[in-house]
Amino acid sequence: MKKVQLGPKTLLYPMPAFLIGADIAGRPNFMTAAWSGIACSTPPMLTVALQHHRHTLRGIKENGVFSVNIPSADLVKETDYCGIVSGQKEDKVAACRFTVFYGLLKTAPMIEQCPVNLECKVMHTLHLGSHALVIGQIEEVHVSEDCLAGEEPDLLKINPLIYCTGAEKTYHAFGQRLAQAFSVGMEIEKAKP
Amino acid sequence: MKKVQLGPKTLLYPMPAFLIGADIAGRPNFMTAAWSGIACSTPPMLTVALQHHRHTLRGIKENGVFSVNIPSADLVKETDYCGIVSGQKEDKVAACRFTVFYGLLKTAPMIEQCPVNLECKVMHTLHLGSHALVIGQIEEVHVSEDCLAGEEPDLLKINPLIYCTGAEKTYHAFGQRLAQAFSVGMEIEKAKP
Repeated sequence: MKKVQLGPKTLLYPMPAFLIGADIAGRPNFMTAAWSGIACSTPPMLTVALQHHRHTLRGIKENGVFSVNIPSADLVKETDYCGIVSGQKEDKVAACRFTVFYGLLKTAPMIEQCPVNLECKVMHTLHLGSHALVIGQIEEVHVSEDCLAGEEPDLLKINPLIYCTGAEKTYHAFGQRLAQAFSVGMEIEKAKP
Repeated sequence: MKKVQLGPKTLLYPMPAFLIGADIAGRPNFMTAAWSGIACSTPPMLTVALQHHRHTLRGIKENGVFSVNIPSADLVKETDYCGIVSGQKEDKVAACRFTVFYGLLKTAPMIEQCPVNLECKVMHTLHLGSHALVIGQIEEVHVSEDCLAGEEPDLLKINPLIYCTGAEKTYHAFGQRLAQAFSVGMEIEKAKP
């Protein structure tokens, strides 16, 4: 199969579309971030990359805490809006009609309408070039009661967004369930000669 | 809306399912990683978190380079298998019938069957607890020619996997296109009083 070289590019599938929350001078603000992932299991940690000039980054430095809010597909407009405009100029909470709540860390604002909210404490900040890579320890996870199946989060009820890069930048929904993890791969093991 | 607290957890949607490649003592090996994300734009960088005992991490340290291979949905069995077994015991390349190729960095093995392959050079390694967080600079991106639309990667042709955590750990396909990014959010701006 012929491979074509595209040069160095930030090309991954899937990318998330998270709403990163921070208080700036006592006022909650949220920005959209696709550049985030899990960094450690024990203790649980995640990364989020923010451009140095970001209003949200100012708030993260101010309080040493932030939140990661996972929007559902019905918040696609709000998610996109929070990635277009700056909290320096606009009150995004008012424009998006977000209901803000606080939890364990007191100063990490969270969005009630997002089905999953993680409160994080800053552990490390690396200056990598255009972006600051913030490594946060996940201190608490909040899930909307109606998005649980028993005591576990239910993917179909959460209905999260995917951000896609490529010819066109788009948001997608989750598609069909393909297989169970830590299980379907054993068919390869069994098929070995 | 009532929120339920689940305690500190590595709960994000979506998570990827990447095949991380490294040569160990001259032999290519691949492991599945869901804990990865973009870390910087200029220069392009990404993170991948690996448990300290991982055979693949040994190879990454040995060569200072690694690859990120993005599997398509039809590689779901192989992707799961590479997360279950260790390259210390099994020849995963043979078991999965992967065709391995090398590029710019010479010692970062890549999988021809995966539609997108990123070659990365290690810039930083952070020891965070159970995991080492490897920060790699993306030096080259390879895309299978039949997964391009003109000069850009085509999501429908790439058909990537999503890894999902929750009550059940599963792989999912991408679903419907919901909206165009950096565009649909302007409806919020226009609706402001």
